[in-house]
Amino acid sequence: MTPPEYTYPAGALAFPHRGLTGIAGLAPHQIWFLLDEAEQWVEMNRGAQKRVELLSGMTIINAFFENSTRTLLSFEIAGKRLGADVVNMAVATSSVKKGETLIDTAMTLNAMRADAIVIRHASSGAVQLIADKVDCPVLNAGDGQHEHPTQALLDALTIRQAKRAFNGLRVTICGDILHSRVARSNILCLASLGADVRVCAPPALMPADIEQMGVTVFHDFDAALKGADVVMMLRLQMERMEGQFIPSPREYRHLYGLTLDRLELAESNALVMHPGPMNRGVEIDSNVADHVERSMITTQVEMGVAIRMACLDVLTRKGRKMEGWA
Amino acid sequence: MTPPEYTYPAGALAFPHRGLTGIAGLAPHQIWFLLDEAEQWVEMNRGAQKRVELLSGMTIINAFFENSTRTLLSFEIAGKRLGADVVNMAVATSSVKKGETLIDTAMTLNAMRADAIVIRHASSGAVQLIADKVDCPVLNAGDGQHEHPTQALLDALTIRQAKRAFNGLRVTICGDILHSRVARSNILCLASLGADVRVCAPPALMPADIEQMGVTVFHDFDAALKGADVVMMLRLQMERMEGQFIPSPREYRHLYGLTLDRLELAESNALVMHPGPMNRGVEIDSNVADHVERSMITTQVEMGVAIRMACLDVLTRKGRKMEGWA
Amino acid sequence: MTPPEYTYPAGALAFPHRGLTGIAGLAPHQIWFLLDEAEQWVEMNRGAQKRVELLSGMTIINAFFENSTRTLLSFEIAGKRLGADVVNMAVATSSVKKGETLIDTAMTLNAMRADAIVIRHASSGAVQLIADKVDCPVLNAGDGQHEHPTQALLDALTIRQAKRAFNGLRVTICGDILHSRVARSNILCLASLGADVRVCAPPALMPADIEQMGVTVFHDFDAALKGADVVMMLRLQMERMEGQFIPSPREYRHLYGLTLDRLELAESNALVMHPGPMNRGVEIDSNVADHVERSMITTQVEMGVAIRMACLDVLTRKGRKMEGWA
Repeated sequence: MTPPEYTYPAGALAFPHRGLTGIAGLAPHQIWFLLDEAEQWVEMNRGAQKRVELLSGMTIINAFFENSTRTLLSFEIAGKRLGADVVNMAVATSSVKKGETLIDTAMTLNAMRADAIVIRHASSGAVQLIADKVDCPVLNAGDGQHEHPTQALLDALTIRQAKRAFNGLRVTICGDILHSRVARSNILCLASLGADVRVCAPPALMPADIEQMGVTVFHDFDAALKGADVVMMLRLQMERMEGQFIPSPREYRHLYGLTLDRLELAESNALVMHPGPMNRGVEIDSNVADHVERSMITTQVEMGVAIRMACLDVLTRKGRKMEGWA
Repeated sequence: MTPPEYTYPAGALAFPHRGLTGIAGLAPHQIWFLLDEAEQWVEMNRGAQKRVELLSGMTIINAFFENSTRTLLSFEIAGKRLGADVVNMAVATSSVKKGETLIDTAMTLNAMRADAIVIRHASSGAVQLIADKVDCPVLNAGDGQHEHPTQALLDALTIRQAKRAFNGLRVTICGDILHSRVARSNILCLASLGADVRVCAPPALMPADIEQMGVTVFHDFDAALKGADVVMMLRLQMERMEGQFIPSPREYRHLYGLTLDRLELAESNALVMHPGPMNRGVEIDSNVADHVERSMITTQVEMGVAIRMACLDVLTRKGRKMEGWA
Repeated sequence: MTPPEYTYPAGALAFPHRGLTGIAGLAPHQIWFLLDEAEQWVEMNRGAQKRVELLSGMTIINAFFENSTRTLLSFEIAGKRLGADVVNMAVATSSVKKGETLIDTAMTLNAMRADAIVIRHASSGAVQLIADKVDCPVLNAGDGQHEHPTQALLDALTIRQAKRAFNGLRVTICGDILHSRVARSNILCLASLGADVRVCAPPALMPADIEQMGVTVFHDFDAALKGADVVMMLRLQMERMEGQFIPSPREYRHLYGLTLDRLELAESNALVMHPGPMNRGVEIDSNVADHVERSMITTQVEMGVAIRMACLDVLTRKGRKMEGWA
């Protein structure tokens, strides 16, 4: 698929970072390039032969300092389908528990001669900290409230497959914008691709200076939905559900839950998205989540494996003596 | 090995289900077919070269919602020896803990384009629930008190190798029949193959309508052992050992434990079986468990890998465009 | 690299044990042989192609009854880079928790037809107990306060690369000598290779009869450092840091911590080593641990993968019908 908005400039692969710690810093054509690269894996993954030997002999370490079954599974499957040796470092048993510093753990993984390290960490910036210390490319699988770049890329791929272009596309992101790395990476990615991004949250869950990211701010979900081409719901974290941020799940649903009625306010072919895992009946109703034509939620999961394959492939090209991510 | 009892009818591979959620519903010749298929893997696993590329490029996900080291290991080894990419979903870190529904978890695994999903779950029927929702074959690795089909198949294979035929073979199953999916699947399997199945348990651990499954009911272990060709002991779950079901482990051993003396009541070449892990000194004495000629307990473990290889192979044949499990 | 001290006698591969449960019992030329074998893997691991098919079709089971992320990762990567199928038995979910005996667990792993089993266990001697019961070679990844042979081998390889020979090399090992299997295996290994080994610890953490191992005993760290060619610091276990053994981490650092000042007492090109994970600011200061020229700490990790590859290769040769470890 050739992009309608972008043509690859010469040196399209000369990315600013060696790893992928965030969407910030990526040029639009670089995002587009990663989406293009992912398409081949979408195709392959639908057949019975789902493995190539592209990264054969390379070692990928998934170091998840924060639990996440689906993201870990997605990266593990992605690496294995590319033919790499994939090893998972379990946080529960890690030396981190013995008081080892994060940097020491990173240096250890590096010394084992990993070809790529995928990191998830509860602290914003932890991934960059590690990326600065190791010799191989580092892929951010979510760090604190900072970024979750592969989630934004898989969301963009999901949208592109249905809508083909991003220019002027109205995307409404609703939920806990303040604490969400998914929201942050998606805003950066979608704005960069030319979409018209709207964010909607209760005042207590909206960052103060969010307009500077080029988005339109809403507190009224109905207004935010009007004319939307894509509705992206965020997971409401349990720990926000009571007390200072949200009066109750029931109240949250009343004001910010995506119901079938409310979906009517958006465009008639609007896509519904959610990064999962969902709280059904809180931020999204089951008849919306399971809507055969509108819900893209399982498609997002499928695109996730393809995007992670694309990222792992591109990031390790230099290690394979190919032109690649610098 | 050609079966003495069955010849394969035309369309032997036209199995009623796409997955394997239980022994119930399998025709005797289908059970026999799976045992035959397993024989080649028993052979291969005894050599130094234990891997084929049969399922190369396929992805198998082991989703164990209930802990089980040995069954998980067995399935993981089976999948890897067939050349598949195997990923384990760890329950302890799963989104299930975040309140995700079982169906959403299943849909996620499905969207990652698994070629087979192996599931263990504490609730009876959970595996069928998932099987109904996903596109790939599902293999039941034990669900609640319902079924554990690969255990029954590996037990049948173990018996067949020693006894060659099942017609009229007296098999005594002793233990907590009421709560045991191992007992249930074994009864279905052995009765289907023509064996004379006896069940023995304290009254409180015997299902009310068990005779309807075609078995003979005993409460006196000595009587149940008389003339038995096979003695299959069940694991006594810790939580049953005190209180309402069993007065004490000591008392249980006295009435239902397999001692060397008691084994004398069975046929002189009777096989001793146990699905493990054993409570030595409770349901089985060490000198019985370690009996060089009679105990089949480690053989059962060995047959387990072979049976799981056979099941994974047969279940994924359709995905590989071969005639297979429909 | 040909050894200056040893030439391989005829039948160099006729090792006394089938597995590797400790350094004790190994002849010096056998240690040297394993170091030589590891060199090729050091080389390979530095390139992009890090996998050979040497152990293709073999199954290695890592059975870690005691948590250890870095050692497990190292063994897992080693096995995969040799082309083996590697499966990890997670202790947290193991049948051991269900009261199964260690021997039964071992018999189960054996029955799954493992080609090598790597074991870590909190009890001294547990690995030998298992090795006596199974048909395949067993590799000790640390058992209680007994041995941790691959740690000693990787330390020896690290030293050999920098110093080339061991004869008369002054190696100071400082820390909790009493409880440390790392110290024990290193003393056996280094003394066997001809080094002049000094051990230094507070009196409460020094074994009574340690001189019998051919080492010189120190309680004053400054004296122990004088003229040392290698300084090997041991991790201070948290549980020893307060109460009966050590007054406080601060006091420990004062007496036995390796500071930059103290390092001056050793030879000007002395190597600094630590098995990790480190307690920075307790047994070792950060400016020592991160010393560009002197610290070998990440090199040790790198050598760890190579040594484990060498051990897994050599131990499984007999299974591959090659001359090998008897």
